[in-house]
Amino acid sequence: PTSQEEPAMTVKVKLGENNYGKADVRLFKVFRDGPRHDIKDMQVRVAVTGDFDAAHTDGDNTGLVATDTMRNTVYALARDGLTGSIEAFGKHLITHFVTQGPRVQGARVTFTQHTWARMVSGGQPHDHAFVRQMPKHTATVWGDGQTFTVESGLEELYILKTTQSGWAGFHRDAYTTLPDTEDRILATVVSARWTYAVADCDYDAVWTAVYEALLDTFPDHYSPSMQHTLYRIGEAVLTRCPEIERIHFSFPNRHHILYPLERYGLDNPGTIFHADAEPYGVIEGWVERA
Amino acid sequence: PTSQEEPAMTVKVKLGENNYGKADVRLFKVFRDGPRHDIKDMQVRVAVTGDFDAAHTDGDNTGLVATDTMRNTVYALARDGLTGSIEAFGKHLITHFVTQGPRVQGARVTFTQHTWARMVSGGQPHDHAFVRQMPKHTATVWGDGQTFTVESGLEELYILKTTQSGWAGFHRDAYTTLPDTEDRILATVVSARWTYAVADCDYDAVWTAVYEALLDTFPDHYSPSMQHTLYRIGEAVLTRCPEIERIHFSFPNRHHILYPLERYGLDNPGTIFHADAEPYGVIEGWVERA
Amino acid sequence: PTSQEEPAMTVKVKLGENNYGKADVRLFKVFRDGPRHDIKDMQVRVAVTGDFDAAHTDGDNTGLVATDTMRNTVYALARDGLTGSIEAFGKHLITHFVTQGPRVQGARVTFTQHTWARMVSGGQPHDHAFVRQMPKHTATVWGDGQTFTVESGLEELYILKTTQSGWAGFHRDAYTTLPDTEDRILATVVSARWTYAVADCDYDAVWTAVYEALLDTFPDHYSPSMQHTLYRIGEAVLTRCPEIERIHFSFPNRHHILYPLERYGLDNPGTIFHADAEPYGVIEGWVERA
Amino acid sequence: PTSQEEPAMTVKVKLGENNYGKADVRLFKVFRDGPRHDIKDMQVRVAVTGDFDAAHTDGDNTGLVATDTMRNTVYALARDGLTGSIEAFGKHLITHFVTQGPRVQGARVTFTQHTWARMVSGGQPHDHAFVRQMPKHTATVWGDGQTFTVESGLEELYILKTTQSGWAGFHRDAYTTLPDTEDRILATVVSARWTYAVADCDYDAVWTAVYEALLDTFPDHYSPSMQHTLYRIGEAVLTRCPEIERIHFSFPNRHHILYPLERYGLDNPGTIFHADAEPYGVIEGWVERA
Repeated sequence: PTSQEEPAMTVKVKLGENNYGKADVRLFKVFRDGPRHDIKDMQVRVAVTGDFDAAHTDGDNTGLVATDTMRNTVYALARDGLTGSIEAFGKHLITHFVTQGPRVQGARVTFTQHTWARMVSGGQPHDHAFVRQMPKHTATVWGDGQTFTVESGLEELYILKTTQSGWAGFHRDAYTTLPDTEDRILATVVSARWTYAVADCDYDAVWTAVYEALLDTFPDHYSPSMQHTLYRIGEAVLTRCPEIERIHFSFPNRHHILYPLERYGLDNPGTIFHADAEPYGVIEGWVERA
Repeated sequence: PTSQEEPAMTVKVKLGENNYGKADVRLFKVFRDGPRHDIKDMQVRVAVTGDFDAAHTDGDNTGLVATDTMRNTVYALARDGLTGSIEAFGKHLITHFVTQGPRVQGARVTFTQHTWARMVSGGQPHDHAFVRQMPKHTATVWGDGQTFTVESGLEELYILKTTQSGWAGFHRDAYTTLPDTEDRILATVVSARWTYAVADCDYDAVWTAVYEALLDTFPDHYSPSMQHTLYRIGEAVLTRCPEIERIHFSFPNRHHILYPLERYGLDNPGTIFHADAEPYGVIEGWVERA
Repeated sequence: PTSQEEPAMTVKVKLGENNYGKADVRLFKVFRDGPRHDIKDMQVRVAVTGDFDAAHTDGDNTGLVATDTMRNTVYALARDGLTGSIEAFGKHLITHFVTQGPRVQGARVTFTQHTWARMVSGGQPHDHAFVRQMPKHTATVWGDGQTFTVESGLEELYILKTTQSGWAGFHRDAYTTLPDTEDRILATVVSARWTYAVADCDYDAVWTAVYEALLDTFPDHYSPSMQHTLYRIGEAVLTRCPEIERIHFSFPNRHHILYPLERYGLDNPGTIFHADAEPYGVIEGWVERA
Repeated sequence: PTSQEEPAMTVKVKLGENNYGKADVRLFKVFRDGPRHDIKDMQVRVAVTGDFDAAHTDGDNTGLVATDTMRNTVYALARDGLTGSIEAFGKHLITHFVTQGPRVQGARVTFTQHTWARMVSGGQPHDHAFVRQMPKHTATVWGDGQTFTVESGLEELYILKTTQSGWAGFHRDAYTTLPDTEDRILATVVSARWTYAVADCDYDAVWTAVYEALLDTFPDHYSPSMQHTLYRIGEAVLTRCPEIERIHFSFPNRHHILYPLERYGLDNPGTIFHADAEPYGVIEGWVERA
């Protein structure tokens, strides 16, 4: 590479694949139909694709929708258009952007929806108070004005079991020091995403079904590997949810390492662990219909 | 200030208040009494005070406990000494460090305990599977070998109510632009800590009682200010928990701002909000027994 | 979706695309050739692909390399194999994993290398002391044992200019409220990645050339849009670095919003800004050789 | 504790120490005196104390300054009042809040100032382009309208030396496994704060002098312990900066652990390290004038 001296002339270049939009639009909606309120809480990212060459090459912004307008639009359309799932709202937004933006040919909307439980207060579910929960409902919707592609997800669900997990019979080479184990802690922060076999469905019900399949399946078997558990969970999801075409999991293996207490003359029968922050295993895969 | 040129001689200095120790010791314990397991999951920080002058001034480490030894000790003592609350374990650790460290005169142990719920799997609470929850149980214990001081806390509980909150009648000056409101969203991430009127108690039960007092009181009244709600919650805690001497709350006021849809010819009757990330109000105070 | 009741039988499923490996391996190497030391500091992620079906479907781990072995291997091979760039080390690691893993068919190694400057101490560059810098050198290398694909990157470079930037002449619709401006602050945290037109080169020199092209080009023109500035920077990079095939930028537009001081009878001639945390624009695109 | 059943009557409580204010006010100021611009970039937190009892106990907000007004005030006063250091601006803000707030008796303003270097572009320092740097200049100023207390700080300076550091001769007990070492990596992320012996001074010059004293002293000696190095740096600061009364350091000891390559038949002569994320030592202390 030639640095610092300005070259006599620039080489010929062209614009490749590109997009622009607004990220981290924090939208909160209250549904006040009667005394019992409901809420939706999400961060939205909008990105559009299209013919934006002149802006890049000539600084000509004609026909470009400002990202500030996209932000305004998310809030404005949420008033009447956000009535159910984020996936449905994503389609609504995409139709708007593809229709209204003079140069827009396609759009992608990404959501991270925070989950809230109705607060139990004074022994009763409360009409208008809520408590934030950990797992998130994510979604990415793409569209070109003709068709939509939807991918939904579940993130930040931290689950753990204290037994019925092992890792044995694996390959051993010059750098292998890990012994076989038939009893270890298995812990992961679930990151799942799935595509649909149908053009539309009750997306919130599907999310809940995936969530329940995860909790029902994760501890229901002896796990010989995170891989096997991943596959079993995928099988459970695809069995319960005909709407889902295939599902991907990214499972960090959050290692809990037995602390070497024998150095102090103490035994450690699966009792005292170091919850190691790093490194961690990552097991990823799609489970699909055969 | 004089920079870069080395001074001819240094001024006379002395060591002031000081401490050292180990932070972010990640301890996980499994209780396997029968098929139904229990777990404790925490990050521990140990800090000791004492006569460490020679180490600072002369580089003489004689009698200093290594922070690596502190780490080992946390794991080793947890085997038999961590049977109930983190507060009790803190006292156990402090007694050890003050007794064993040749130069140690006092110790402070700080805990952040992660809360886990027993997983509901297949419709049943599971024997050995768990799901991480958001709120944390914190504690700081100090001791000099004679007495202990305990401060417990509750962190990262994100709660919100959609109505029955206002902010009106406040002072207006040249820089005031905020209008009075009798209906707003009130949202906060609770950070609470409290001291005890008793030398010992069931610390876990107290924590749960504070948690329940928070959920019971937060939405049980029209809130004219975060300050008033803070005071009411404190009153509820001190009423329910005779063990607690006084309680401090730090309440960030997570603003949810009505989005100005009137610019697009739309009304916005408490429906569409911007969940503003910054800035945020912070309301802090102790509530004490009169 | 059908939740909670266990289905009579599971549907037929199969394993799709999958990989596994170790993430956040924190490797630090010291080069002690003489009194003047050098260092390399990085976080490494290894992921392998191959025939792992039996592990998923039958819990048969035969032939699987443990992720713990991958961790050990990164450290062990770094001893002799990490002599120059992370890109070259990535190829070395991939060759090892593809050759040694009985079932491994391909591997991907991802690096985040922290940059350190030699400390200037006492007015002189110091032989063995260093100060961490903000920008990071990233790289992802893929390989199947025959060929390699290398993508390098530059992350977390936060740059800003106070003038010579505007945004005007854009499309206005019902939700547009932003006025045209010919003078604004332009601020971004650079995220760049690029592919190579050559099979091998001095990757560190290329990274430095991209870094310099960024700093030389970002403020050298009136910016009518982030898009145009992106394109110009891409042109500069491709002109200076014949080794680079194409380059992608993701530019968050960190908005600095003029604070409305006129409400207090004060003017604000480009002086007082709110450095807004959210939302932010995101401008992304590839610049390629024509 | 008594949970869930509502008590017949509440106990007598009172409000203890309290404050409220606005946090994370993101202020950015441009100085445009001629073509060569300068910038100041900071996050500000304001907190006021005073007679706020009625708001807490009776929900009476009379005389309370809204935190939204505090936000506006920070921006408005920055226009003319932020001309030099954050410390001086803090005094200015405090005088305003104590004077203007009917019930305000004291105020505290906390700053985190981001440091930016003038961009070197085309081989020259640029007039209006800047690059964000890692270390931060922090300050907390308290005042009651009569006097001010100022504490300044330096944060997020990550420094490391590869040799001339050891840890030996320390106390060994039943839980000690760490061997003595005369050669290790010493790495820390500096967190320093200091108070002043004078009522006013050139605060920015003092910050720079502390920064330089840190870099000059950290690697200028064999370090037998982080404690000794802390003391030496304190001595250097107090020698160079007569304005400083005393200085506190909090030094995390970011452990770099020699990776056990001997397991694979390889030696490791201070070459390959694991940059361990947790746990870490923490060494804290004040150095004061004797």
